[in-house]
Amino acid sequence: MKKTILIACLALLTNACSNEGTNAAQAPKNIIMVVADGTGPAYTTAYRYYNDDPTTQAIEETVFDRHLVGMASTYPARVSGYVTDSAAAATALSTGVKSYNGAIGVDVDKKPVQTVLEYAKLSGKKTGVVVTSQINHATPASYLAHNESRKNYDAIANSYIDEGIKADVYLGGGWSYFIRDDRNLVDEFKTAGFHYVDSYDQLANVPDDKPLLGLFGNTGLPWSLDDTNPQRLSVMTKAATDQLENKKGFFMLVEASQVDWAGHSNDIAAAMGEMTDLATTMEYLEQYVKDHPDTLVVMTADHSTGGLTVAANGKYEWNPEYLRTMTQSPSAITKTLLDSEINKKLVEELLHFTITDEELVFLQQAKVEKSSDKQVYKIVKAIIDQRTNTGWTSGGHTGIDVQVFAMGAGSEMFRGKIDNTDIAKKIFSLLGK
Amino acid sequence: MKKTILIACLALLTNACSNEGTNAAQAPKNIIMVVADGTGPAYTTAYRYYNDDPTTQAIEETVFDRHLVGMASTYPARVSGYVTDSAAAATALSTGVKSYNGAIGVDVDKKPVQTVLEYAKLSGKKTGVVVTSQINHATPASYLAHNESRKNYDAIANSYIDEGIKADVYLGGGWSYFIRDDRNLVDEFKTAGFHYVDSYDQLANVPDDKPLLGLFGNTGLPWSLDDTNPQRLSVMTKAATDQLENKKGFFMLVEASQVDWAGHSNDIAAAMGEMTDLATTMEYLEQYVKDHPDTLVVMTADHSTGGLTVAANGKYEWNPEYLRTMTQSPSAITKTLLDSEINKKLVEELLHFTITDEELVFLQQAKVEKSSDKQVYKIVKAIIDQRTNTGWTSGGHTGIDVQVFAMGAGSEMFRGKIDNTDIAKKIFSLLGK
Repeated sequence: MKKTILIACLALLTNACSNEGTNAAQAPKNIIMVVADGTGPAYTTAYRYYNDDPTTQAIEETVFDRHLVGMASTYPARVSGYVTDSAAAATALSTGVKSYNGAIGVDVDKKPVQTVLEYAKLSGKKTGVVVTSQINHATPASYLAHNESRKNYDAIANSYIDEGIKADVYLGGGWSYFIRDDRNLVDEFKTAGFHYVDSYDQLANVPDDKPLLGLFGNTGLPWSLDDTNPQRLSVMTKAATDQLENKKGFFMLVEASQVDWAGHSNDIAAAMGEMTDLATTMEYLEQYVKDHPDTLVVMTADHSTGGLTVAANGKYEWNPEYLRTMTQSPSAITKTLLDSEINKKLVEELLHFTITDEELVFLQQAKVEKSSDKQVYKIVKAIIDQRTNTGWTSGGHTGIDVQVFAMGAGSEMFRGKIDNTDIAKKIFSLLGK
Repeated sequence: MKKTILIACLALLTNACSNEGTNAAQAPKNIIMVVADGTGPAYTTAYRYYNDDPTTQAIEETVFDRHLVGMASTYPARVSGYVTDSAAAATALSTGVKSYNGAIGVDVDKKPVQTVLEYAKLSGKKTGVVVTSQINHATPASYLAHNESRKNYDAIANSYIDEGIKADVYLGGGWSYFIRDDRNLVDEFKTAGFHYVDSYDQLANVPDDKPLLGLFGNTGLPWSLDDTNPQRLSVMTKAATDQLENKKGFFMLVEASQVDWAGHSNDIAAAMGEMTDLATTMEYLEQYVKDHPDTLVVMTADHSTGGLTVAANGKYEWNPEYLRTMTQSPSAITKTLLDSEINKKLVEELLHFTITDEELVFLQQAKVEKSSDKQVYKIVKAIIDQRTNTGWTSGGHTGIDVQVFAMGAGSEMFRGKIDNTDIAKKIFSLLGK
């Protein structure tokens, strides 16, 4: 009987709605794409336990837990094998086309492919990019530019002016690429009518009468753990939504760029700092969707980085308590150790846990070696990995599927296992293409 | 206008169905729980690329891709930290209760907790377990028994008789635990009215007039790669469904036990063999659900094992072509090498790819070492890892979230991020508890 009623309900729904495309019916006004660079499933798992309050019986749910809808494959075009780089992955996410590793908004024949950001702009929406890397790095570039190589940083930066200004908000790092001896692109943006800011505290009071360029670092921003504002991604994201709101809606790319960099460095402490900023950003966006239910937020990773594993070495434990007390990154700690006499008291003050005499000797020996900065950094991270029981297998990317999170209007479209190109295809369809 | 119609449709559905519990309305007649032991997301990703036909442009979709619905956290009770063993995980999956590592169907106070299999049996359904480990191993034991330690193999086997026979079908390994000097449990099962078979070819023709015990190995079954029937999990699963079908429906546990064992051994070749058997089993169940739409299949892992990563060592590649030509497991290859004179021709015939002179010397040296079996096995696996660019961080488990796959009646209940205990809770609710 119950089954009969359900089937009747479904039949009603199907008959009444069969001529209405679900996509069109649910098309959101605003679309916010969050790329958590390098953030494979080990990172969100690790973050849950890092974020856990051990004084409570329950393990606290994270914002990621609340919005998981599925997973995506990340492989690049066949010519590049099964493991993607950030450029090919971001091109897949921005255009819906698989390309070769290194490709920025171009296909395997190096021909430009329209991006969802470009299409949104042409459709009359405002657009923006908010990143913690330089704003001409692979991921934002794949939404804003077309270049045969991600390495052409200056050319990509130039294209942001020369190929027409495609966004209303650019926030991130990049002074060294935008203020150069041969060209001052910041001045050119100003001439084109942009507000320009270069410190986070200016963001709260930017008037929204003009488009906005904000650069806050020479290349990428400092690690979250070391930045003057550890929550800089969420601060920039809030500023961008304030700036972009308009009647026709907006498309915005938000990239937590530096989880990937922590992964490349096999630096679990920096990674958890970046994850905290990302989680705060997603919590802000969760509230934003509540306040603006005509908004879709989709988050995914472009790939996972470093082969991070939550436990290693045959031991059934992962000990995030050593990470929760970190007040600066292993890079910053390394710098202090290189500038000081390394003794146990200093190291323990910096790490907030005790070290063994053997570990102290390792650090002291590393300091006199040829590449002492690399060596000391390596030992600092090894000590943290040993305490936390963290594993890594690579300084590069891995091919594991990544998670897809979505909330707001149209979020159910991203359920199940999809491919990274499907994300662009679905966004294009929601934009009416 | 479109939005209005959609909202009207949804209102119709809500009003018409609001008093009908979705769960009850969709309660499936048959429930098949598949535990892919140790099979974290890196395994299903690796399997996709291993299964890929490189002569086609597309990467072939797998059965796992078609049925992903979400992910599950796997942490045990707080007393055991954040990383689970198979016993605590299987207890969570079977009872809905978090327990300590080692616990078999008991809570943190070592008190028995009712399992979904026990509840299904009491509800009048037939029940079964199909595994590639011994049938008294941690996962099946957690559905069938209550014991303070997974290590009490004989006691767990005894309980299968002494605490009342709870299943109608038992298929897997375990002669050494069931035919012992002190007790012959196989004879006791026969006395209790069971058919007994001990070879796969008997399975096709077992009459379904009596319950069935089938044991096909001393402890666990041979690796899929070495077994007389590499598809033994799917063969046993088919036999079990044939046996269990009845008017009141059935609950069955299927465990792909040995993906985990391959993970513990850091053996990617054996892992892909086990994944192939698991995929074939899931393809069989996919067809079974098409033919019996009142069936729910849920698949998850209890945890991931080995810290497997698809790529390693800074290289953006994973090369499954070296695995696709394997005709026996690294363990079997090791056995042959230990029994023979190790020369290049022999090694290359066994591996189906060329090796370097240096690798040959490593193998020859390993053979004269103290634990030569372990050493040669290690080198064989290292050569395969190097060619495929596979990474591992542990001989144990990791804490990464695992995937949840579901198909058939009620499958939408398992969507999104859930906890492993939620799987048992949802199955209990579908059973009407």
